[in-house]
Amino acid sequence: MAQQEQPLYLEDLQVGQVFRSGEHALDAEQIRVFASQYDPQPFHTDEAAARDTFFQGLAASGWHTAAITMRLVVQSVKLAGGLIGAGTEVTWPRATRPGDVLHVESTILSVVPSRSRPDRGIVTVQSDTFNQHGELCQRSTARMLAFRRQPGLG
Amino acid sequence: MAQQEQPLYLEDLQVGQVFRSGEHALDAEQIRVFASQYDPQPFHTDEAAARDTFFQGLAASGWHTAAITMRLVVQSVKLAGGLIGAGTEVTWPRATRPGDVLHVESTILSVVPSRSRPDRGIVTVQSDTFNQHGELCQRSTARMLAFRRQPGLG
Repeated sequence: MAQQEQPLYLEDLQVGQVFRSGEHALDAEQIRVFASQYDPQPFHTDEAAARDTFFQGLAASGWHTAAITMRLVVQSVKLAGGLIGAGTEVTWPRATRPGDVLHVESTILSVVPSRSRPDRGIVTVQSDTFNQHGELCQRSTARMLAFRRQPGLG
Repeated sequence: MAQQEQPLYLEDLQVGQVFRSGEHALDAEQIRVFASQYDPQPFHTDEAAARDTFFQGLAASGWHTAAITMRLVVQSVKLAGGLIGAGTEVTWPRATRPGDVLHVESTILSVVPSRSRPDRGIVTVQSDTFNQHGELCQRSTARMLAFRRQPGLG
């Protein structure tokens, strides 16, 4: 498990490195507040109405889980220049629920220097979001910019 | 362009149908509020600090653009039983900025009845988020549940 305080450059990143985030405790109020603004559907906003839906109870919007995941990743994977994503795939194998305590484990899948821009490359990071039972709630695979410490070398 | 008030079932969906959303006006305050909670990086939270970054000015978190997009899609693509996503791919070809007015055009790419569950199927929806200049800021391709009006028929 990588521990780091200094920002990471392309040269610091290796396939298989894992970064574990801190935790986020989710509750019904957070779920309702996010959903009322960004995903206003009964299974995300109303505990009683949610019982008779696909989710059989209040569940966070997948985009809420994704947003929480982003904060946990920002705090645990400190790339130099920040986390700048070009694109991502996201799956939600399990809903996140009131009372869940989430954390994220991010694994470097690939590190590819740019052919045309000697100062940067693309790193692919798989971020898995788990609940307190170790159940996978979200998997995201993101392509992010990584900058070189010494452009054109190495 | 499809216009609809009644919820849509699997039988109502056809490849090539397009749903156009309403508009969302983005401003710097919204960008900062979302980012301070979910994506606390200088290019999303601080106009002055953002000038010296990759974005050369304040830009919304991609997850903020995704969340706004979800609300616009919830309001414009009314599937029976709600929008329940199994997974999605998202790319951000262009940042969204203070002053942008966003709308979403959602196109049905495929409709696949389930082999094992006669009451449902999977619909693939491409949702393109444009700014007021018609520039593509986000493309998401989502696999969503669609329920049959008459399970097992048709």
